[in-house]
Amino acid sequence: MNEKIIRLLKEKNFKALREEIIELNEVNIAEIIEELNKNEAVILYRMLPKDLAVDVFAYLSNEQQMNIINSITDKEIKHIVDELFFDDMIDFLEEMPANVVKKILENAKEEERNLINQFLNYPENSAGSLITIEYVDLRKDMTVKEAIKHLKETGLEKETIYTCYVTDGSRKLEGIISLRKLVISQEDEIIEDIMETDVVYVHTHDDQEMVASVFKKYDFLALPVLDKEERLVGIITIDDIVDVIEQENTEDFQKMAGMEPSEIEYLDANVFTLAKNRIAWLLILMISATFTGRIIQRYENVLQSVAILAAFIPMLMDTGGNAGSQSSTLVIRGLALEEIKTKDFFKVISKELRVSFIVGIVLSLINFLRIYFIEKISFKISLTVTITLFVTIMLAKIVGGILPIVARKFKLDPAIMASPLITTIVDAVALIVYFSFATMILGI
Amino acid sequence: MNEKIIRLLKEKNFKALREEIIELNEVNIAEIIEELNKNEAVILYRMLPKDLAVDVFAYLSNEQQMNIINSITDKEIKHIVDELFFDDMIDFLEEMPANVVKKILENAKEEERNLINQFLNYPENSAGSLITIEYVDLRKDMTVKEAIKHLKETGLEKETIYTCYVTDGSRKLEGIISLRKLVISQEDEIIEDIMETDVVYVHTHDDQEMVASVFKKYDFLALPVLDKEERLVGIITIDDIVDVIEQENTEDFQKMAGMEPSEIEYLDANVFTLAKNRIAWLLILMISATFTGRIIQRYENVLQSVAILAAFIPMLMDTGGNAGSQSSTLVIRGLALEEIKTKDFFKVISKELRVSFIVGIVLSLINFLRIYFIEKISFKISLTVTITLFVTIMLAKIVGGILPIVARKFKLDPAIMASPLITTIVDAVALIVYFSFATMILGI
Repeated sequence: MNEKIIRLLKEKNFKALREEIIELNEVNIAEIIEELNKNEAVILYRMLPKDLAVDVFAYLSNEQQMNIINSITDKEIKHIVDELFFDDMIDFLEEMPANVVKKILENAKEEERNLINQFLNYPENSAGSLITIEYVDLRKDMTVKEAIKHLKETGLEKETIYTCYVTDGSRKLEGIISLRKLVISQEDEIIEDIMETDVVYVHTHDDQEMVASVFKKYDFLALPVLDKEERLVGIITIDDIVDVIEQENTEDFQKMAGMEPSEIEYLDANVFTLAKNRIAWLLILMISATFTGRIIQRYENVLQSVAILAAFIPMLMDTGGNAGSQSSTLVIRGLALEEIKTKDFFKVISKELRVSFIVGIVLSLINFLRIYFIEKISFKISLTVTITLFVTIMLAKIVGGILPIVARKFKLDPAIMASPLITTIVDAVALIVYFSFATMILGI
Repeated sequence: MNEKIIRLLKEKNFKALREEIIELNEVNIAEIIEELNKNEAVILYRMLPKDLAVDVFAYLSNEQQMNIINSITDKEIKHIVDELFFDDMIDFLEEMPANVVKKILENAKEEERNLINQFLNYPENSAGSLITIEYVDLRKDMTVKEAIKHLKETGLEKETIYTCYVTDGSRKLEGIISLRKLVISQEDEIIEDIMETDVVYVHTHDDQEMVASVFKKYDFLALPVLDKEERLVGIITIDDIVDVIEQENTEDFQKMAGMEPSEIEYLDANVFTLAKNRIAWLLILMISATFTGRIIQRYENVLQSVAILAAFIPMLMDTGGNAGSQSSTLVIRGLALEEIKTKDFFKVISKELRVSFIVGIVLSLINFLRIYFIEKISFKISLTVTITLFVTIMLAKIVGGILPIVARKFKLDPAIMASPLITTIVDAVALIVYFSFATMILGI
């Protein structure tokens, strides 16, 4: 499909091209435009019917949006400004350089310009930054018939009309009513009698992660957003929340791998930014790991007299690190999904104690059989390695299970207590245990 | 709020209790029931108006659902079977033991029983397992007025009426139309003229991860599901997709920490299951790490003659592992979100080469300054450690960036190429590099 369109474009067969393209979904048209060069993109874009053009615009990359804004007339820009959904407009403006923002603001009506400035000021990742203002508001003394008439008159421009919001003269939220309820109610019923008054809402400055968890809990399609004076500012729709959820997960993945979180896509990110995001944690962990080195240094005499002991260090360090990361990952994820609360502290310890006992027994046993019978290592050394392995797994899993909850308790992000930090801690512990047992059992 | 309700329940003040509780949202009532013991839960549940009771039932834990089913009459069960949304019913039945499923099926009409059996047979994690059958279907020769009348007659029982599906006599999907479009159209327009025919859909056996990515791409609220003969079987709604997204992310977190993925919540999971999910990978990685041990064994003479070299092993291993995990995490996540494709292989290599060069230079420089000037280690040893660190970071980041793409290319899950495996590989590489430079520079 895409090839055919691109071919028609190259052949300048604009009539056939236009016929093909207006049949497509706006998402697919945007995809095609992304594959074109700057000039072709503008040609194809200008060929779209005005309203479809605006829908397509919302799905373009920031780069193509900027290219198009810089190539079209003020009149065309004005049409985009007037017709683009408000939340898409804000998303777009947030990523544009100052000259493009200026061009857009010049083409907006004064009222809209003020609103844009207000919305651009909401903190990044707050509920305010997700708000759309295209919702339907009703009055509680309307009948269903009047409400549906109002809907028909204004609904076409609204992003979602599936929930309508009932407000009073000072924009205070009094209730909500679904389009579904409106459609299936008798025409002469009064909104006040059929609206829901137990409304769940969020505030403009709430964190988007909190907003996402409200959506997940109640299975809503949209949620009203109030300001500090409890007036309705706008709504948040679930399609934007899907993006928030993925963004929050990406942040957790990044933090758990010891990086500064970043919203920029990998392939678009600047090399220096990527390097900067990675260096801080690597540096902290590198310095911490030198303390582990000190432990080896302190027991140099033990290694000198029984050199084979050094050969088991990587296995002990790695297994301990992996065992600890497993536990910390499960607990961090459980905390993020609110399946684990800080009050479950002792439940987690008790669970990790039992799990790590089973895992420890199985792994140490297999390890003992392997190094004693197959590698023919002496009994005392096999015993030292095996006991160390068991103790390390127990400690690693308990440390891995506890630290994320402790972090949450101290209002830190549990995600920092992931693999890299746990590994560093467990490495040091494993080596101390190892050399202590070695001196004890081998009598060095 | 919850305390008040629980207090009224303990005081057996049922009248006040009922008044309080019917004002609440079903999600909140379910939350309260979860805090009660088995008997209290049943008492409170039976106090709810019949229809609210069914809504609450859908939000209860499997444990409480089973408790309630085992305590109520067949007539009450029949009401739940008749009124519960079909997808909630399937979710519930999938988790119930055979005797409960039998009890439910006995209370279902024959037609529904057949449908339940069909749906219970869809593979877990397939589109089929997410289907709801409560949707509105129209015929293309209806007028808008007739369509809205049909909606009013049947819409109350449907989970979503925001999109209506136009089918022909053999249930083939011919188009879709949104409630919004219906409401704002003229009453005498014909559905065929205003419906959309470029419909995006999925098949019953498609993987749920694929379904989620369709939702993310097009910002849909619902998506039709067709069988192999292209007949409409049901729809999938976005609230279930939010759960799928979180579940797929949880699976990725688990795989990336070297565990078998599991859908059971941590606190509910059996200790033996948890242990089993963790042992396999730990065992594989433990055995692999012994090869790293072999490398140390092979260079025993180097360690014997310059014992201080051992002290830098943990730092080199950990920093290499962390550097590699950072890259692999970003690439795995990029692949999962479809921001990186396998064709971007060389772009990723080029990016990692440049990033790792910067990171490597900064870290090695700081490391050199620290060990040569502060720890007063000899120049040659400082140089050996520094060069090894630089080379290890470069290699770790390239390996970490490449392996997830290679995995995808071979149809494996990129998530297995995460921290644990990368660490094990990088550890071995780091040690070989270390001892090679040591023998070269120190002339051992």
